[in-house]
Amino acid sequence: MRENRCQFSDLNFRFPNGIEKSFYHGQIHPELRVPYKKVTLEVRDKPLALYDVSGPYADPKTPVDISNGIPKVREPWLQRNPDLKEYRTSSHKSLPGFKGSHCLRKAADGKAVTQLHYARKGRITPEMEFVAIREGLDPEFVRREVAEGRAIIPSNINHPECEPMIIGREFLVKINSNIGNSAIRSSILEEVEKMVWSIRWGGDTVMDLSTGSEIDETRQWILRNSPVPIGTVPIYQALQKVDGCIDRLSWDVYRQTIIEQAEQGVDYFTIHAGLLRDFIPMAAKRKTGIVSRGGAILAKWCMIHQKENFLYTHFEDICKILRDYDVAISLGDGLRPGSIADANDDAQFSELNTLGELTKIAWAHDVQVMIEGPGHVPLNQIQENMEKQIQLCHGAPFYTLGPLPLDVAAGYDHIASAIGAAMIGWLGTAMLCYVTPKEHLGLPDRDDVKEGIIAHKIAAHAADLAKGHPLAKQWDDAMSEARFMFKWNDQFNLAIDGEKAKNFHDQALPTETKTSEFCSMCGPNFCSMRISHEVCDRSK
Amino acid sequence: MRENRCQFSDLNFRFPNGIEKSFYHGQIHPELRVPYKKVTLEVRDKPLALYDVSGPYADPKTPVDISNGIPKVREPWLQRNPDLKEYRTSSHKSLPGFKGSHCLRKAADGKAVTQLHYARKGRITPEMEFVAIREGLDPEFVRREVAEGRAIIPSNINHPECEPMIIGREFLVKINSNIGNSAIRSSILEEVEKMVWSIRWGGDTVMDLSTGSEIDETRQWILRNSPVPIGTVPIYQALQKVDGCIDRLSWDVYRQTIIEQAEQGVDYFTIHAGLLRDFIPMAAKRKTGIVSRGGAILAKWCMIHQKENFLYTHFEDICKILRDYDVAISLGDGLRPGSIADANDDAQFSELNTLGELTKIAWAHDVQVMIEGPGHVPLNQIQENMEKQIQLCHGAPFYTLGPLPLDVAAGYDHIASAIGAAMIGWLGTAMLCYVTPKEHLGLPDRDDVKEGIIAHKIAAHAADLAKGHPLAKQWDDAMSEARFMFKWNDQFNLAIDGEKAKNFHDQALPTETKTSEFCSMCGPNFCSMRISHEVCDRSK
Repeated sequence: MRENRCQFSDLNFRFPNGIEKSFYHGQIHPELRVPYKKVTLEVRDKPLALYDVSGPYADPKTPVDISNGIPKVREPWLQRNPDLKEYRTSSHKSLPGFKGSHCLRKAADGKAVTQLHYARKGRITPEMEFVAIREGLDPEFVRREVAEGRAIIPSNINHPECEPMIIGREFLVKINSNIGNSAIRSSILEEVEKMVWSIRWGGDTVMDLSTGSEIDETRQWILRNSPVPIGTVPIYQALQKVDGCIDRLSWDVYRQTIIEQAEQGVDYFTIHAGLLRDFIPMAAKRKTGIVSRGGAILAKWCMIHQKENFLYTHFEDICKILRDYDVAISLGDGLRPGSIADANDDAQFSELNTLGELTKIAWAHDVQVMIEGPGHVPLNQIQENMEKQIQLCHGAPFYTLGPLPLDVAAGYDHIASAIGAAMIGWLGTAMLCYVTPKEHLGLPDRDDVKEGIIAHKIAAHAADLAKGHPLAKQWDDAMSEARFMFKWNDQFNLAIDGEKAKNFHDQALPTETKTSEFCSMCGPNFCSMRISHEVCDRSK
Repeated sequence: MRENRCQFSDLNFRFPNGIEKSFYHGQIHPELRVPYKKVTLEVRDKPLALYDVSGPYADPKTPVDISNGIPKVREPWLQRNPDLKEYRTSSHKSLPGFKGSHCLRKAADGKAVTQLHYARKGRITPEMEFVAIREGLDPEFVRREVAEGRAIIPSNINHPECEPMIIGREFLVKINSNIGNSAIRSSILEEVEKMVWSIRWGGDTVMDLSTGSEIDETRQWILRNSPVPIGTVPIYQALQKVDGCIDRLSWDVYRQTIIEQAEQGVDYFTIHAGLLRDFIPMAAKRKTGIVSRGGAILAKWCMIHQKENFLYTHFEDICKILRDYDVAISLGDGLRPGSIADANDDAQFSELNTLGELTKIAWAHDVQVMIEGPGHVPLNQIQENMEKQIQLCHGAPFYTLGPLPLDVAAGYDHIASAIGAAMIGWLGTAMLCYVTPKEHLGLPDRDDVKEGIIAHKIAAHAADLAKGHPLAKQWDDAMSEARFMFKWNDQFNLAIDGEKAKNFHDQALPTETKTSEFCSMCGPNFCSMRISHEVCDRSK
């Protein structure tokens, strides 16, 4: 690894006192160790379990050295799967500086190895039970949602480090954070650090959108150290391989790229296969044209070659490859609106309709699919997006970027996005792609990544509460009880970002013990909660 | 003024290059000078007009010295109103250190002087035309909305410094910011600075919620320097007068307090008159009891004295006083839910029903009314709040605190609140009370005030777009055009917080000229907008 500009002294981190990393065991697969955060509370006798995506990084028993990679939790399951075969290939390059191993696997001849395949066969895989336990739901329910295509478990067989998670309307709303270098900045280590930083704050998946140098190495370092699914947009690397000349892009280059990335262990690919030549004139009339990078690249390719989008014409070939590794497809919305003016227009919905066609093709090949969505949409047009997506895409999970319900929030687009994301999450979107404060302005740094993640965790949890997910309300109830009983340490441990909450409280009342029965907002005499205790006691 | 801990070197501020303070003139009242921000754009020939609440502070022609107070824009209108009389009273204390004047006025005997009264009489006052011009709407439409009680123009005749603004469902969604000291911290100057800081970032009204020392002086300094309406919760000062002993609160103390504050020029009072004794047991069963400070105080008073809330029993007396000054009533929601668990419960809706009764009484006295709303409400229960409020309160404007659609966002409750606020604003709430990142943790400082305001400006504007306010979309369209044409300076001038947007862009590409046709997020080769230009040009 060159350019070791390290921002962190150590990638491991610790939960605060009162929070402990714990594990549930499986019933069907007793060897499963499903992580959760055990929060011991002053206000309640029983600890509260919170969903945990931190992998080994917060586990004091598993200090991480990224040059070895993190433990491979799926390895035993993969080893005993008879449908898989191990192999070697010249296309897979070894990773300089990496001391760990990476065993290449793919489906044995004639076998399908996707979660969708197994679910349809009625089999509850370790991955399915793992996510069922994480979500507090029945494994059979998970299996059925996956079998019906309403949920996906992105889990490439070459990413054994991944702790399975599920993306679907009936589950906790997930969030994705984007990392990745550009030609302008970033080093490899910085990207690994961003991934760890991202999961520290609760990112459920990470997309590596690198377009700069060392794309390949960066991704491998990320994968070998990531306990969450990693997504990519392979057209970026394909374009890199042809020196950025869009006219030289071809199916062969793309095909080689997705095989290499599948071998590395990427869990889902954004594929802009629904952007058809016929839709381009619709986008040309817009206020902001095409704002998806992948979409713009493919539109330009279609124009240059006067041909149909090769991702569309080769879509079945793509499915056949991805099935061998269980790479899920995230059907890209290359024509998503980039402004309020362009929302819900013909270009957008024509592409969405095509994504629905492609969903059925992927399903026919046992490949897991989700659908990407906008973008910029005013609040009054969000519901139409969700309804059309469910209808046109046959219930496949929706994965949206925001949407931003206004265009003028530059510098605060994480808040704009959180507003639209909360609403569309409540209405049924399964995963929210974060937007950082730097959106439209520059590449996010570490602080921006955190701000973006927290804003979208807030949106996702607001959606979970509104949808009535069983795990959601008990969390807020515990917080409200702690608040009413002035249990400040409980409040910090229950807050999405307890560090910041504690820091804010310290600024006002810097005491060690945190036993004050008021805060500096109202002071002791005007504390409604204090007075309320007296009122409640009297009227009982 | 003691304790001059000044954070700012100067209260005046400047708009950046390209933005100029300009004025429209009236048609009915030609002497009106209605401010707006004239934004000159590179991307368009015609400048764009944006709503402006900054008063004289950003006007290079009117440097402000707060010891003189700001110019009294309403003075000529008040002087020629024959329904008003000037008077002197011993209850009005002079303000040490203040060099400006403050002439006391009230309604002449037998006269009503409220905007509601004039609207009902068919008269378009200068205040009504002022707000019509600000909103780009017809003055007669404004008059009708005020006459029907669907909108209010909070404009105490003793606040001649106030530039009129309107709060109603058919108008731009407004935001309020709370300032005020507590027993724990803050000085007078700091509060004046927070008020100026608040309007700098777009706060439409400011509530002074001081509960600490020098309540009276603080409020007077704020009023004499505020171009936006000022609201208070008089029960706080009444309680101060009886040394914080709730049992010693009485109608007499309260009556004296509201007269004094009306004379000082407070534009609206939060009055918790709808919290009836019968409702207290309903609140006692809750997870978080009573979280409104005023509500808790009055509930305790009712319990101690075993009597009905004196604000309810004296409500007509209150109306008779407020009518003489045109102080608007903001009917407080003393039983608003303080947690997701308590949302939309009997306590809350019983009080809302009583607020509807009181609305009719206030209207019978020609007093302007708005209704305060929650609080903490999950996304799926927000619409019910809005619908019930419109129905039970006969269309009076709704003014909500958030709502927060989750409880666990401590440290980021401005974002949680913005999510709920955007939704309820779209559904018809007329004004959004901001929440800062310090909510639940401590008293906000300058940075928190700004963060809170910006988050709620974003929510309000998202609501305006969704409701189709004529001024809203042209703003976003200009931004999107600037974005597509890489006009960075236009983007900064059109952003809600251009300073931050520019700062973020500078971090990535620190060039003076801002002519790059890409940003550091994607770099030059992967810029979708750049590629999109080529695609759009070719396909035309």
